[in-house]
Amino acid sequence: MILVATPNPAIDVTYRVGTHVPGGTNRVLDVQRRAGGKGVNVARVLAALDVPVRAVLPLGGSAGRWLCSALDVPFDATPCQAETRSTVTVVGDGHPTVYTEPGPRLSTVEWAAFSARLAARLPDADLLVISGSLPPGAAPELVGDWVRQARAAGARALVDASGPALLAAARAGADVKPNREELLAATETNDEASGAAALSKLGAGLVVVSRGEDGITAYDRSGVVAVPAVPGVHGNPTGAGDAATAGLAMALVRQLPLDTALRQAAALGAAAVLRPVAGEVDLPAYRRFLNGASA
Amino acid sequence: MILVATPNPAIDVTYRVGTHVPGGTNRVLDVQRRAGGKGVNVARVLAALDVPVRAVLPLGGSAGRWLCSALDVPFDATPCQAETRSTVTVVGDGHPTVYTEPGPRLSTVEWAAFSARLAARLPDADLLVISGSLPPGAAPELVGDWVRQARAAGARALVDASGPALLAAARAGADVKPNREELLAATETNDEASGAAALSKLGAGLVVVSRGEDGITAYDRSGVVAVPAVPGVHGNPTGAGDAATAGLAMALVRQLPLDTALRQAAALGAAAVLRPVAGEVDLPAYRRFLNGASA
Repeated sequence: MILVATPNPAIDVTYRVGTHVPGGTNRVLDVQRRAGGKGVNVARVLAALDVPVRAVLPLGGSAGRWLCSALDVPFDATPCQAETRSTVTVVGDGHPTVYTEPGPRLSTVEWAAFSARLAARLPDADLLVISGSLPPGAAPELVGDWVRQARAAGARALVDASGPALLAAARAGADVKPNREELLAATETNDEASGAAALSKLGAGLVVVSRGEDGITAYDRSGVVAVPAVPGVHGNPTGAGDAATAGLAMALVRQLPLDTALRQAAALGAAAVLRPVAGEVDLPAYRRFLNGASA
Repeated sequence: MILVATPNPAIDVTYRVGTHVPGGTNRVLDVQRRAGGKGVNVARVLAALDVPVRAVLPLGGSAGRWLCSALDVPFDATPCQAETRSTVTVVGDGHPTVYTEPGPRLSTVEWAAFSARLAARLPDADLLVISGSLPPGAAPELVGDWVRQARAAGARALVDASGPALLAAARAGADVKPNREELLAATETNDEASGAAALSKLGAGLVVVSRGEDGITAYDRSGVVAVPAVPGVHGNPTGAGDAATAGLAMALVRQLPLDTALRQAAALGAAAVLRPVAGEVDLPAYRRFLNGASA
């Protein structure tokens, strides 16, 4: 089973408007709400691939209750006092406009309950995926703690995070999957190889760097493996990174060779671009992409 | 007691961002949520003035439960299946950008329950205020039904609505308070006097037309009364019309002369502009404005 920690879940709200008028009043023609947050997207893709998965997430307030009722993957929720956040994406006549709420502040006791719930599930897990931002006020070292919990329970840990949380994950010995921008920002380096080397030096296992249309590269002690992105894919890039994380997680659990793992991640990322909402993948396209087809 | 029907309440969400980037990703620095919808704002201003008031509103889903917990005026909620709506206002470096969700579709049975709740409260009411939009799919004639219910129970009815709902209110004999644009659009006329005459001809009692900085005019069978806006007021115009409606409602209940009623409405509208959020008024400023002071 793959356990997916989502420290900052969200209700992903999509507003469809006609002509988007910044600085004016926009009548929303259609509202879509779904459970979101990067970890929820990862879990949803794994579930679509019939990989046993369980999400663990803190939920609070009426938004948390809504999310509880809307989540379509197995999950454990630990309660928090403050409201679970929303993200709003406005889709109109131009590029989508996104508003991301910061998320609720959790107390030390609420984080302890979250960590305890992870610990209770880890004996059944082969891999712990930690994905997405931490809400405001959460210590980045929490991510290191969860990685150490996983490793102590005999599970691998794969972390898609940024900034100090990414560094904490590396120090705790996790496999990490930042995108290129996150890697360079967290390590304060100017090139990918130096950034990957910095994370390895801190203690990271595998360092997998995604670059959207420019493919995926993995760095580990035995060298570098790179695969290109599936060519000619157009659509909605939101959630493509999460689908790639799901592909990588599935490959790690199945102990597939690294190049196969990256190909799987790239094919799932591309298959996610073809779907209009984050957390979904076009499964027939995924299978075609795995067999070497372009879009 | 003033009964305030709010057929389409909302959670009013305010997002504060740094630089607003349409077509990009905006990190929300601060989130404020409060109970809203025009009728809720009217009720809140009346409560601030110590006028006995009760709001009646349909509430649904987790958003409805949140609103239930956040409403700070006496209210009756009737349940609906669909989620109560939100409005989102983005405040950044330029003019605020507003997104208004359409609201939930209520079934015939749910509207019947709402009407029955109004009917149960009307014997204790001197005035029924109906304020704000109807959610999608609601027949405009519902507003006419509520006005007739009120009149049958011996209460006056004051309606702030637009389009077919405004016409239905006029036909049922309500006092109406559209703004100038709503009046001209609903009556398909080019000038205010003709629009007011059209509503009177349909059956409206008092026709009060608000024009923001250009003052308020009342048309009835005995003639026309106009008062100017309080000069020099700058701030947040959202909710100023609702505060003016509250002022008018209070004056109607107290059977004040029409010019006093309009002065009270204008002073409250101006006092609302001085407050950063809709549904609040600056009470000391209101008293100064009533005494003839400018801002």
